[in-house]
Amino acid sequence: MCELMGMTANVPTDICFSFSGLVKRGGGTGPHKDGWGIAFYEGRGYREFRDPNPSVDSEIARLIQRYPIKSRVVISHIRQANVGGICLENTHPFNRELWGQHWSYAHNGQLEESALHFPASFYQPVGTTDSEQAFCWLLAQLRLNFPIGTNRVDKSSTSDLGGCVERSGCIEQISTAIHTWCEQLRGKGVFNMLLSNGEYLFAYCSTKLHHITRCAPFGEAVLSDTELQVDFKKVTTPNDIVTVIATQPLTDNEQWTPMQTGELAVFKNGELILQRFGQ
Amino acid sequence: MCELMGMTANVPTDICFSFSGLVKRGGGTGPHKDGWGIAFYEGRGYREFRDPNPSVDSEIARLIQRYPIKSRVVISHIRQANVGGICLENTHPFNRELWGQHWSYAHNGQLEESALHFPASFYQPVGTTDSEQAFCWLLAQLRLNFPIGTNRVDKSSTSDLGGCVERSGCIEQISTAIHTWCEQLRGKGVFNMLLSNGEYLFAYCSTKLHHITRCAPFGEAVLSDTELQVDFKKVTTPNDIVTVIATQPLTDNEQWTPMQTGELAVFKNGELILQRFGQ
Repeated sequence: MCELMGMTANVPTDICFSFSGLVKRGGGTGPHKDGWGIAFYEGRGYREFRDPNPSVDSEIARLIQRYPIKSRVVISHIRQANVGGICLENTHPFNRELWGQHWSYAHNGQLEESALHFPASFYQPVGTTDSEQAFCWLLAQLRLNFPIGTNRVDKSSTSDLGGCVERSGCIEQISTAIHTWCEQLRGKGVFNMLLSNGEYLFAYCSTKLHHITRCAPFGEAVLSDTELQVDFKKVTTPNDIVTVIATQPLTDNEQWTPMQTGELAVFKNGELILQRFGQ
Repeated sequence: MCELMGMTANVPTDICFSFSGLVKRGGGTGPHKDGWGIAFYEGRGYREFRDPNPSVDSEIARLIQRYPIKSRVVISHIRQANVGGICLENTHPFNRELWGQHWSYAHNGQLEESALHFPASFYQPVGTTDSEQAFCWLLAQLRLNFPIGTNRVDKSSTSDLGGCVERSGCIEQISTAIHTWCEQLRGKGVFNMLLSNGEYLFAYCSTKLHHITRCAPFGEAVLSDTELQVDFKKVTTPNDIVTVIATQPLTDNEQWTPMQTGELAVFKNGELILQRFGQ
């Protein structure tokens, strides 16, 4: 198994504090030594840092802990390999372009071999993980069900969602569709995942996922995995709203909300905007 | 204008030496202060580091100079913006997945506005540069003209090229096609580019591009842009073959080969394997 972490905020926010806790689980306090990765959205821009080496020993992970990249959406993953060898092409998060947006994805769990015989689609896996196959299938479903009309001209907005452009109820429709496909995948094994296009952050829980939303009045937080604490009052403004999602709570003095099996939670600008629940 | 750098080798090779020279041009000895990026292929795996900040001031660029990532193909770019604002989504190299391979691309030059009204295609630009539009068009042409048959099973090989899988003369056909499309783009402005799928490195010259192939007996090289030299004898084996491609020669004590206008040079495992020439 692996560990997932996601962040969404209404202002560009750095993830140094939470990431410092997560990386300790990558071969330190946790067994997840088979690589790690983190993706940052900056406006429409996207960049990721991935390393097949244990995060606790990673020169690049050390940079990310001390170099504050301000982002409104982050997806991170530390890996304990099951399906697929330990190599860069099997290191999460995975990304593909859909509707002129970078879509990023990380998965925790394992799917039955039989679940992975998806038909050839727009997106081809590069590596050999069940996770990337499921991602390619999910994005192909989105592309198929919400086809984009024409080459978009306005790049200033990230709010259009394929065939949903300028239609109301768009995010509701897409969330219902993503939930349905995630439920299908859950029927084939364990499927906890984080997915984002840089505006919305979709979190689906199969077995284990927690989230916490921080806003004014901000308090102190103490990491569970390393001796580090932060007083969020000192690094935020009263209007900031930040949600962090993680397989296991990263702090031990705050109340994290456990997600239910079959639950899809959709976040935007740091807030939970809608949910779908399993049968 | 911008500066391009590419590397191809028959053994995993680090690019620290050449990159140290290139980054100096990113706001130091050169005016290319509008961001930089570098892409590394490791087997089928792909990772890139991009930063909209000047490379000469970049914390991430400093990491790349001292952290030797061993790669067989590298594409790098430092930017002096013309079309498209200075932001992460407009920072080269750009990448998309095609045929289950990560394709990476960087462009130097500028295309007429009229050249950029490509029909809607499989690939949508995320940013607002002429460069990314041309890349999306090029990859869509490849996908259209060399469609992949089925979802590939064998991920151990990177040698298949879409519809060319297991057909002989494949790289010749694809090179001819890429050359034809690059010639069309050259008719619309200045189009120097580097393109790779991790196995082949395609270099197309519109106005300015140089390359040098280093093999035994290796000698010393002295960077033009910073006080740094390396004795390749000490860091190579007699069988190593490494080619570096750059807009301007990076060293001043070696003989670099200037490419011709309209020339496409295709490299594999550090060696020039074929060329196409313009009219």
